[in-house]
Amino acid sequence: MARLADGRQLIYYDDGDGEPGARPVDSRELPELAVASELRYDPLVDEWVAIAAHRQGRTHLPEVAECPLCPSRNGAKTEIPAADYDVVVFDNRFPSLAADVGELPAGDDDMVPRQPGIGHCEVVCFSSDHNGSFAQLTPTRARTVLEAWADRTIELGLQPGIEQVVPFENRGVEIGVTLQHPHGQIYAFPFAAPRTARMLTTARSYRRRTWRNLFADVLAAERKAGTRVVAENEHWTAFVPAAARWPVEVHFYPHRQVPDLPALSDAERDAFCHLYLDVLRRLDRLYDRPLPYIAAWQQAMVNVDRDLSYLRLELFSLRRATDKLKYLAAAESALGVFINDVRPEDVAQRLRDLAD
Amino acid sequence: MARLADGRQLIYYDDGDGEPGARPVDSRELPELAVASELRYDPLVDEWVAIAAHRQGRTHLPEVAECPLCPSRNGAKTEIPAADYDVVVFDNRFPSLAADVGELPAGDDDMVPRQPGIGHCEVVCFSSDHNGSFAQLTPTRARTVLEAWADRTIELGLQPGIEQVVPFENRGVEIGVTLQHPHGQIYAFPFAAPRTARMLTTARSYRRRTWRNLFADVLAAERKAGTRVVAENEHWTAFVPAAARWPVEVHFYPHRQVPDLPALSDAERDAFCHLYLDVLRRLDRLYDRPLPYIAAWQQAMVNVDRDLSYLRLELFSLRRATDKLKYLAAAESALGVFINDVRPEDVAQRLRDLAD
Repeated sequence: MARLADGRQLIYYDDGDGEPGARPVDSRELPELAVASELRYDPLVDEWVAIAAHRQGRTHLPEVAECPLCPSRNGAKTEIPAADYDVVVFDNRFPSLAADVGELPAGDDDMVPRQPGIGHCEVVCFSSDHNGSFAQLTPTRARTVLEAWADRTIELGLQPGIEQVVPFENRGVEIGVTLQHPHGQIYAFPFAAPRTARMLTTARSYRRRTWRNLFADVLAAERKAGTRVVAENEHWTAFVPAAARWPVEVHFYPHRQVPDLPALSDAERDAFCHLYLDVLRRLDRLYDRPLPYIAAWQQAMVNVDRDLSYLRLELFSLRRATDKLKYLAAAESALGVFINDVRPEDVAQRLRDLAD
Repeated sequence: MARLADGRQLIYYDDGDGEPGARPVDSRELPELAVASELRYDPLVDEWVAIAAHRQGRTHLPEVAECPLCPSRNGAKTEIPAADYDVVVFDNRFPSLAADVGELPAGDDDMVPRQPGIGHCEVVCFSSDHNGSFAQLTPTRARTVLEAWADRTIELGLQPGIEQVVPFENRGVEIGVTLQHPHGQIYAFPFAAPRTARMLTTARSYRRRTWRNLFADVLAAERKAGTRVVAENEHWTAFVPAAARWPVEVHFYPHRQVPDLPALSDAERDAFCHLYLDVLRRLDRLYDRPLPYIAAWQQAMVNVDRDLSYLRLELFSLRRATDKLKYLAAAESALGVFINDVRPEDVAQRLRDLAD
């Protein structure tokens, strides 16, 4: 573990057991971080919202020579002091949540409780190659990324107040990615994310009725039907959910119920990497151009409902045709009603046909 | 009430009591509508999703001369047979839900119940002027639109199976609007929209604890604090909610608890139009360019919880700066955690300062 010039933490994860290259100190002069995140409780829907006004000035699609996620070489001084790296994880310079967010400003509304925006926002660089992508990683490298996710899940779960850890990747300018270097993020929240909380509520209700696990039964039904399965191996199945919200949506479930990434066996870790790389490459062939997507791990909360939880990755894209995106307009954004213009069975069939 | 060539319903609403112009019949040859909407139940979150594959081919940003929402004149034959109109409401040609959606295809997954996509999707043209906008309407015309919304709320609520009626406007190509002519829509759902259901659950819990109405208390707290109030008159207040999810978000509450639009008094209807037009014009001055926005009425369900409900309009925009949009990436889309880069008090102050 190293520290950047402004005190942020940075960790290198290497592919092999070989000697890593030089790891120089960060010699930049960086202004101190000023994070002013605040959580406000929305009493209408019983959910927390983060207000993070300091993020308005964050770096936005810099030129390649200015990329802060490339290694520091040829005179450039970036977020990563080393001249090369395999995988690196460090604290986001413009975090939505942080360990130290200063004093909570006074509120003026008893209906809307407030809390300091405590949490963690980390950046995970998948490769030092600016023009790479997750789909282009070797299985070895994908495994190093998975090890980093699992390691950070443990470490962040031990930090004060943290209730949920979520590794994810936003990919593509179409969904607002502000840096094009291949990278993901890890958020650690001091509460259950609304979608996660919702799924745990339904899983609890399902277990009360059936004595069974909801996610295991969803997986079993998809494997039995087969019409929406995209690919599978001994340990994992990738399928388009029957009630998919997005024109392209693929969920990755392990065949064994485990609560989180650290609980995966060595064989399950390798099997995930092979299946995920296979499906990602099909997704980039779907429209003959890199697919913008969001991929997020749903794993167990740190402290509660671990017995109900079932680790899985949810990936989806708003691209509904080569030249068209799905927009979230009033139905989705104001009402929560998703209208999907693509039949899940059709996109699953297309993805099956795109096998190597 | 008139019928279009393919049997869809069309209704003219006029500003005054004067004699309307000629209302010719629709002389186009239109192919029969083929709507294949299906509702699928997502067991993970206890919500319905609409699968509407026939919408993939819908009209997308046509040239002005081809605009289907302009009146039929100068040889053009559009969706509106008349040579001019004030306000007109008609069935969408590419509906997400419809009264007749044919037979439900067989499902293959017991975990995901299915239903035919029964419902109604109507288009509401606010003006025959292609280049107009809601903000540019006269108060008289805004009132005619409100009368149309109230009338359709009653009529659609009487249709078989309908549980919720939602008038809304999507405005701006930035949120995916496919027709630029000033118009809104009305959706009639056979279920409670997830966001509405959620708010009724919290309102029920709040009443059990306090014997009070949640929405009335939220309004009272905002009026007392004052820091987020944008504008108000005798009957309505417009404010930025304290836990706003969006960089620009304004809610319009009547001062009296009414369940839906038809329950508004004459004075309340006029007062809404004046306040709404005032605030819409400020919103277009916020970034010195037309603001893309979503505006949706939250009104009572047709059959249940009418005593808990409180009519209001929720308006929001994803524009977070003159040249920047907010995107819903993993935090919002995969987890339901909204991160707002703009303090609600700041945008409320700016909107107060933009008064005429």
